[in-house]
Amino acid sequence: SVQNFCVLFIICLVIIIFHDNNIHSSLLFCCFSLLQIDHFGFLEDGTFKQRYLVSDKHWHQSGGPILFYTGNEGDITWFCNNTGFMWEIAEELGAMLVFAEHRYYGESLPFGQESYSDSKHLNYLTSEQALADFAVLIQNMKNMVPGAQNSPVIAVGGSYGGMLAAWFRMKYPSVVVGALASSAPIWQFPGMVPCGAFYKIVTQDFAKSGHNCDANIRKSWKAINNISSTASGLQWLSEVFSLCTSLKNKADAAAFKAWLQETWVNLAMVDYPYEANFLEPLPRWPIQVVCKYLSFDSPVSDYQLLHGVSQAAKVYYNYTGSTSCLNISQTATGSLGALGWFYQACTEMVMPMCTDGVQDMFEADEWNFQAFSDECSAMFGVRPRAEWAGTVYGGKDIASHSNIIFSNGGLDPWSSGGVTVNISASVVSILIPDGAHHLDLRYRNDKDPPSVRAARALELQYFREWIKQAKKVN
Amino acid sequence: SVQNFCVLFIICLVIIIFHDNNIHSSLLFCCFSLLQIDHFGFLEDGTFKQRYLVSDKHWHQSGGPILFYTGNEGDITWFCNNTGFMWEIAEELGAMLVFAEHRYYGESLPFGQESYSDSKHLNYLTSEQALADFAVLIQNMKNMVPGAQNSPVIAVGGSYGGMLAAWFRMKYPSVVVGALASSAPIWQFPGMVPCGAFYKIVTQDFAKSGHNCDANIRKSWKAINNISSTASGLQWLSEVFSLCTSLKNKADAAAFKAWLQETWVNLAMVDYPYEANFLEPLPRWPIQVVCKYLSFDSPVSDYQLLHGVSQAAKVYYNYTGSTSCLNISQTATGSLGALGWFYQACTEMVMPMCTDGVQDMFEADEWNFQAFSDECSAMFGVRPRAEWAGTVYGGKDIASHSNIIFSNGGLDPWSSGGVTVNISASVVSILIPDGAHHLDLRYRNDKDPPSVRAARALELQYFREWIKQAKKVN
Repeated sequence: SVQNFCVLFIICLVIIIFHDNNIHSSLLFCCFSLLQIDHFGFLEDGTFKQRYLVSDKHWHQSGGPILFYTGNEGDITWFCNNTGFMWEIAEELGAMLVFAEHRYYGESLPFGQESYSDSKHLNYLTSEQALADFAVLIQNMKNMVPGAQNSPVIAVGGSYGGMLAAWFRMKYPSVVVGALASSAPIWQFPGMVPCGAFYKIVTQDFAKSGHNCDANIRKSWKAINNISSTASGLQWLSEVFSLCTSLKNKADAAAFKAWLQETWVNLAMVDYPYEANFLEPLPRWPIQVVCKYLSFDSPVSDYQLLHGVSQAAKVYYNYTGSTSCLNISQTATGSLGALGWFYQACTEMVMPMCTDGVQDMFEADEWNFQAFSDECSAMFGVRPRAEWAGTVYGGKDIASHSNIIFSNGGLDPWSSGGVTVNISASVVSILIPDGAHHLDLRYRNDKDPPSVRAARALELQYFREWIKQAKKVN
Repeated sequence: SVQNFCVLFIICLVIIIFHDNNIHSSLLFCCFSLLQIDHFGFLEDGTFKQRYLVSDKHWHQSGGPILFYTGNEGDITWFCNNTGFMWEIAEELGAMLVFAEHRYYGESLPFGQESYSDSKHLNYLTSEQALADFAVLIQNMKNMVPGAQNSPVIAVGGSYGGMLAAWFRMKYPSVVVGALASSAPIWQFPGMVPCGAFYKIVTQDFAKSGHNCDANIRKSWKAINNISSTASGLQWLSEVFSLCTSLKNKADAAAFKAWLQETWVNLAMVDYPYEANFLEPLPRWPIQVVCKYLSFDSPVSDYQLLHGVSQAAKVYYNYTGSTSCLNISQTATGSLGALGWFYQACTEMVMPMCTDGVQDMFEADEWNFQAFSDECSAMFGVRPRAEWAGTVYGGKDIASHSNIIFSNGGLDPWSSGGVTVNISASVVSILIPDGAHHLDLRYRNDKDPPSVRAARALELQYFREWIKQAKKVN
């Protein structure tokens, strides 16, 4: 039946999910839905094909729930592969799984290859449009799929997808009965949390993962500045880090440092207790492995220090040994849409970040909204609106909502902007002290800490409660 | 202090409120706020001046509440003059009053005189943009007006303004602690209520206001058809109705019937128990006065019948005796923005209406979405989206919201699309059997029926409760 529904909306292909250790046996239908390019205006009346993935293997057709992944900034198949939790609970809930791709990412391009060509074509890349896409898609499915009319829908998402899941429940409570917002930094907006909190958590992760690890990274920036001040130094750096393109000048050195900084951030996000491949293929507890190369006790030379840093970086970029050179224009899987996300940061998703080099292990860098805005204007011809996200999504004042779980990992730097306290009886926080970025959404693993097992059990319990509530109403 | 705030945002002029019987003594400040033309996209980065009226005479500056009128399709001073309820409770609540004008109406024109020039300029006339205007305006006031930071804000509105008040609480519960949605037909959308319900109520109002009144109106359409079939008949009709422009052909006759139908609808809306001037200056219980001319018992000639109809129509259009001729292109005060509302009906506000001539007193006319859509396309170059309002505002599934009062009058045809049952402990319905269109929002009057007095008392009680709740949180 779901297949039929898909066929109505074009091409159905069968794909198979891989995850880290085994091939997942469920079939997945890849569907497209025709949606308005502009939900909030009527001049642009064009439509585009939004991709979504559906599995109805375990669905109880008469009112069984639908778990709906609110896709974030990337290819939806990749999020689907990294959200094993939904696959694992589908059978016991009798649930249909839907993974909806966010517009402007993956194959869901409103203007095809032109989608990123200029600010005119990018104009419909906003979270509000994405939420409207999800709402209309669900309404369409409920109208078209026999048995789905009264299916309670639960939104699930991680990271920006988690923000969308929470906002989806806030803005469209008639469409979804509840939301699991995992590692969703809905408070990482201006004036809500200190701008330095994010990098403090990154630093703490390194501090506790190896002797002197944070201290040596803190020293490394000056070492890079020293060495990159000469042409031979730049050449040496390029060689020791096996860079694909040699560093040529000061601007390259600055880009190199930014890349390194993002590398440490990414490691903090994916510091999982088992071998995994999310942003990059990595060993278990990757920061511990990285820190083995950064445990110098006594003062060492800049060259020695940076040799250690290069080995550490290669843990992240070349754990498999198959990487021939490191590319400083990329820090993670190509499945993420970095350009699209940068546009979103340059419009609605203004997330102030800063470092001081004292409470964190980075070079001091203040948050400068004006400079950021100018950069956005130069790059996209648009300027960010710092206050808008707080106004439209309620900022810290979210107590009037219901049925939202905010789960956060203690190792995850994004928990700095997350909801880590219970807001009410039904807007609740679940903390996973040993967890990195949305660990709870991943497939279970023998090496999972008890805290994430408990989190998943509690999440499932809330899901059951929401489904029960919804049945009572119908 | 409010004045200072206004001055920051330009021109403050002092105006004085009139209402039916006396000049209201409060001063009112007329302010303008700079708001984004497009809240949901970043390509159009222009701003426009939104007008809003402020009275802080009774405001308790340290946290006193703000009653915020969510302006509808017309000049905000007119709504201000017709919302005496807010003025009357301001003192006992220690409340500031704010009346915000809806974009594209009154003086709040995003593109000045060009605002209605084409579909490109009309593109930002949507309820979502209007709600965003209100939210940003309130945030600005809270940031700028000393003492307002923690003021609980209550949204108040009538008719479309009532829909906006309810939706404002639904979509921005962090901005308003509750909403009074008076005569707000939030369910007058496709698939939610029968399309004939509206005209049935109009008919009932006439049926109970005079002997044979509905029956004679039901007969009048055929009489018009008969008489308008000849040139001399058209001339006679034009004369007996004192039309400003004579009817020339069949199309004119059709327009004449539509105008007459709207006249009866308007009378049903403003069937107030005392002399009032809302859509037009009228006597108390105007339908009873109208029906005196429509009480023929035995069959009368078409000419006799239509002579009666003309006298009835003149009650509505010429109660003051100062109207020299009737203009069939207008049925109500010029303070309403009919063109803007038609654009909104042609985009989001799709409200199916139909008549059968049996359960109502009108010529049978089915709801034809395609014909309506074609008319919209010809007029504005846009097509309505029938399902959108239901998706974005939740349709009948609004139980997860809180702190909304839906008040409806039993005489008001718009109650057909209103919420007339309690939805939950805090989303409640108040019925005013003897009330017409948002009678509860008007100044009190000695001739008010007890039901509207009780309604206002209950509304005030809810307001106090919401304010108390808000204080607890802060």
